[in-house]
Amino acid sequence: MSDRVTRKGKSQPQKEEPKQAKKQKVQKETYDVVQLQDMAHQLRIHSIEMTIASNSGHPTSCASMAEIMAVLFFTKAGMHFNPKDPGNFGNDRFVLSKGHAAPILYAAWSMVGYIDSKELLNLRKIDSILEGHPVPKLPFVDVATGSLGQGLSVAGGMAYSSKFLDKINNRYWVLMGDGEIAEGSVWEAAHLASHYKLDNITAIVDVNRLGQSEETSIGHDVNVYKKRWEAFGWKTFVIDGHNLNQLTDAFDQCRNVKNQPQVIIAKTFKGKYLEMENKEDWHGKPVPQAQVDFVKKQMKQQDGFTLTPVVPTQIEKPQQSHFTLEVNYAVDGKQSTREAYGKALVGLSKTDANQQIVAVDGDTKNSTFSIKYKEAVPTNFVECFIAEQNMVGWAQGFSCRGKVAFASTFAAFFARGFDQIRMGGISGSQVKYIGSHAGVSIGEDGPSQMGLEDIAMFRTIPNCVVLYPSDGVSAERAIELVANHKSPCYVRMSRPSLPILYSNNEVFEIGKSKILKQNDDDKILLIGGGVTTHEIFKAAKQLSEQDKIHVTVLDLFSVKPIDHDGILNAANKTSLKTILVVEDHYSEGGLFEAVSSCLSLNNEIKIHSIHVDKVAKSGTPAQMLSLYHLDAAGIIVKVKSIIQ
Amino acid sequence: MSDRVTRKGKSQPQKEEPKQAKKQKVQKETYDVVQLQDMAHQLRIHSIEMTIASNSGHPTSCASMAEIMAVLFFTKAGMHFNPKDPGNFGNDRFVLSKGHAAPILYAAWSMVGYIDSKELLNLRKIDSILEGHPVPKLPFVDVATGSLGQGLSVAGGMAYSSKFLDKINNRYWVLMGDGEIAEGSVWEAAHLASHYKLDNITAIVDVNRLGQSEETSIGHDVNVYKKRWEAFGWKTFVIDGHNLNQLTDAFDQCRNVKNQPQVIIAKTFKGKYLEMENKEDWHGKPVPQAQVDFVKKQMKQQDGFTLTPVVPTQIEKPQQSHFTLEVNYAVDGKQSTREAYGKALVGLSKTDANQQIVAVDGDTKNSTFSIKYKEAVPTNFVECFIAEQNMVGWAQGFSCRGKVAFASTFAAFFARGFDQIRMGGISGSQVKYIGSHAGVSIGEDGPSQMGLEDIAMFRTIPNCVVLYPSDGVSAERAIELVANHKSPCYVRMSRPSLPILYSNNEVFEIGKSKILKQNDDDKILLIGGGVTTHEIFKAAKQLSEQDKIHVTVLDLFSVKPIDHDGILNAANKTSLKTILVVEDHYSEGGLFEAVSSCLSLNNEIKIHSIHVDKVAKSGTPAQMLSLYHLDAAGIIVKVKSIIQ
Repeated sequence: MSDRVTRKGKSQPQKEEPKQAKKQKVQKETYDVVQLQDMAHQLRIHSIEMTIASNSGHPTSCASMAEIMAVLFFTKAGMHFNPKDPGNFGNDRFVLSKGHAAPILYAAWSMVGYIDSKELLNLRKIDSILEGHPVPKLPFVDVATGSLGQGLSVAGGMAYSSKFLDKINNRYWVLMGDGEIAEGSVWEAAHLASHYKLDNITAIVDVNRLGQSEETSIGHDVNVYKKRWEAFGWKTFVIDGHNLNQLTDAFDQCRNVKNQPQVIIAKTFKGKYLEMENKEDWHGKPVPQAQVDFVKKQMKQQDGFTLTPVVPTQIEKPQQSHFTLEVNYAVDGKQSTREAYGKALVGLSKTDANQQIVAVDGDTKNSTFSIKYKEAVPTNFVECFIAEQNMVGWAQGFSCRGKVAFASTFAAFFARGFDQIRMGGISGSQVKYIGSHAGVSIGEDGPSQMGLEDIAMFRTIPNCVVLYPSDGVSAERAIELVANHKSPCYVRMSRPSLPILYSNNEVFEIGKSKILKQNDDDKILLIGGGVTTHEIFKAAKQLSEQDKIHVTVLDLFSVKPIDHDGILNAANKTSLKTILVVEDHYSEGGLFEAVSSCLSLNNEIKIHSIHVDKVAKSGTPAQMLSLYHLDAAGIIVKVKSIIQ
Repeated sequence: MSDRVTRKGKSQPQKEEPKQAKKQKVQKETYDVVQLQDMAHQLRIHSIEMTIASNSGHPTSCASMAEIMAVLFFTKAGMHFNPKDPGNFGNDRFVLSKGHAAPILYAAWSMVGYIDSKELLNLRKIDSILEGHPVPKLPFVDVATGSLGQGLSVAGGMAYSSKFLDKINNRYWVLMGDGEIAEGSVWEAAHLASHYKLDNITAIVDVNRLGQSEETSIGHDVNVYKKRWEAFGWKTFVIDGHNLNQLTDAFDQCRNVKNQPQVIIAKTFKGKYLEMENKEDWHGKPVPQAQVDFVKKQMKQQDGFTLTPVVPTQIEKPQQSHFTLEVNYAVDGKQSTREAYGKALVGLSKTDANQQIVAVDGDTKNSTFSIKYKEAVPTNFVECFIAEQNMVGWAQGFSCRGKVAFASTFAAFFARGFDQIRMGGISGSQVKYIGSHAGVSIGEDGPSQMGLEDIAMFRTIPNCVVLYPSDGVSAERAIELVANHKSPCYVRMSRPSLPILYSNNEVFEIGKSKILKQNDDDKILLIGGGVTTHEIFKAAKQLSEQDKIHVTVLDLFSVKPIDHDGILNAANKTSLKTILVVEDHYSEGGLFEAVSSCLSLNNEIKIHSIHVDKVAKSGTPAQMLSLYHLDAAGIIVKVKSIIQ
């Protein structure tokens, strides 16, 4: 691997310029195009050598964007950042939405001196931090990319945070492939960025014409892209993406656009300056070693490139506060858990001195009750309209900027953002997802609006906490718990108004369930969550009073992590050593499977289930609960059939 | 409820016009605007009365589109259909993408005589077919709507099918709300429809300005919509959506546009002609009964409206063939299951005399190997580019048109279309989803590309079959099985090349597992799927040969429905009555939970698990399997720890 330019690049960042005052304009510079071109070629060479070493990866996808990266990383028109402190909160941030081009990203960070050039050759190796697609283990990466079309959403949330909340004068640069522009999430993101006039965000589309398996649907017709981005409210620059003068000029101009995000539509060639330039069937394949020399021959081999990065003022990332909440319900009160969410956010805001809590919603705020937070702290509520993928991405962007981000919509509609939630799990993003309208108990609206797979979905996210409160008190405590918890979290809320079950000072914990009724002569253990907790409670009372059948009632509350010991102990105390799980959710991946799997090594306890066992329909909430035997009457029948 | 117009409407459809020849142009007509306006008002009155009767629903969302519906249903400019046979394959089809406006859809079908007007008042009742949002139990509904922004995708697949495959001259009309235009899936659908020049599809955007919780982000700025749709390649008509002349004129013009889909951007007012016209806070709320009189007063109460529907030629929906397949692998051969998918589709095509199999992909066809089908039957392969939501919607559209629709991409990227898959489940859509690159065994590309939650996701879909083949033979048989199965199906494919395990004539069944190794003195039962079947097989041989520990090896194959009896019998025969499930998937909702829950009533069998227990990373496939203890070495350690 050539290290000529690398060494030079590495030595330069130490010459820091004086700290920039906020709002200072960058003077337009004349760049040494020959030197920059050599730098771009060096990025190509690194990318080729890295992917040969890993015997996998996407060198031709890197080659099309080498000049873009050179201008971004090595000129003042591009990113302003401290090369020695990639995580600095005041840096411009770069999001490589086309994550498969990771090698050139790592190469650039090597050439500015942050990554040892030898480490580059460990690309994709099990003990290297340089994974096949970028992940935030690296301080210059905010969010995992690799599932296409997601980067612009996360950058949107970050840019909003800098512009409106933190009032930091940094910029966000998002590099996208042309293939991923077909993803609808890109247009959700484009729309919201222009709606909120985010002039601190610049997208660059690397229009290299070739997708993975064939030409993209738009090919090199850059005017189509121009029209689309303009129609979505962006300032567009259509340029030759291999022309360094056009690139630096466009980047310079972007810095001066006000109240409008900008997009540079860069016409490029996949595999540019390689022998396989603009040829199909080279996606995701290492190229022969001879291509290194092929590129080298095109370098001018000049000496003396001077990197003079614009280093922004050092800013500390804010530390997250600890939030506390006062809960105040009358003993005989009623409350829907969804409404308790809004109340809890407002309550938490009272201990949020630095206004770190940010809530987003997708035009359901009067149903999820996030509207209460908007009314209380309007600066920190962001309406994302009916575009759940982007809403999830924005929430992750806020989380990247140290905010405590809550995202709410109907539980069912989080399915729309599952891929973004999945990628957020890989990022270790700490978004708190709040799903309202869970289950058939919403009633008349019918199955399209019923979250019946939301628990299964969120349980698959590594380290994701899943809570399922059953009354106003536990709902508010759940929100308090997740606000303080450093992981992705999901809280499942219900539509119906439900009686208060707990005292205001009841202490809830992640990983702990609650026993609501227990006696020495209980026959079986009933486990519920949300509305079914109330139904099992009613059933238990009736069984006890009318049939002298006594059962334990357990409110699961924490679905993940699950309260293994609490469930086991309660079940062991029953005379039949039997559990009945009742859930307003499909069986698969829900409460029943969570309980079954946590007791899979136990040889004494039987576990029965009542759940939603077919496609649901419209009807009143009570009829729906009855139809699936989730109501007290259905539970009583089931209990009697079990104990017979 | 007024039934003046209803009665008239009901009596008219019987006067059928002569059957229309294909390609016949419709003459522009002069419509009786006064009568049509009365019909629109009658639609409003029905919508008001229905939602009062159900005490829920969205009358103001219906009121904004009443004139649109009148022109669609009651003029020749609108839909050509047989009112007595709503399911006729030759009818124009209407997709109500804004599904919450269901009452006016039902009202229109009542006014053309198909639904008894008395039934309308059973809206949203548990024993009525008229659900809160449309579902395909109704023959005039092709696809469940209610999760916004999905209708255009399904219509795209249907329109492609009519234009290019069935060569039927019917048209597709999709009515969308303005709020849902923020969904990225709409732009995925818009792009692909114009890419394939689908001139038989007309979208109508009901720009009534008001979303659920506030004004939409674009409000009444109809020119923004015009620019966006034009940029996405559509012919646009911007009109006053309450002006019947403008509407009929635009509809007429749409019929004559060639090689381009059309969109009518109709500026409307939510709650039009009601006292709450254009007012906020009336979304999803019944209005007072007095509004019926308020609308009635605006009717001209004229007699003599004559419905003269254009009834297309009756066309029978094609019956699905039975497909068979010849499988041909060498005993010592190797094959990746993903490649077997492509081979199987080609094999099936040989018994597909009517070319009913249609395959779609999202620019991964050279990885999923659907490219083989494209090469063999190019007419029936549709590239959907990198837009998985729309790809799923198109597949559902093909399924609606009687095709056997296969959709393939990386298993991980089906998460992008989960909401569409969920809605497809509600529709009973019979799409066959094929996910390649499952699990950590893909290796270097890293976690963004690894499907580790796909089984959990698809298991939640009601009636969805989930198969997980482990070699070329079982993979091809799985494709044969799902091609013939009338439900949504998911087949999980792996990236690595794997040894052939089964003979070419081995018979596989949905709901049945396979025992690969079993002896009388087996201590425990190992269950695997895909790559882990091979690892448990290797581990079993080694344990047997080196340690004289004998174990049963079971290849799960059918994850849903699961082979309860097969598993139970195999486990019961082991001396320790113990199962170890090994899966290249997260624990939640995967094989382990499927096995645990199916044995939850058994008190003798213990179930252990090896699974992917944290966020994955890059490395070689072998290293990845080793890291999560999914390889033979890890399995041996676990088995020994269990039997100690």
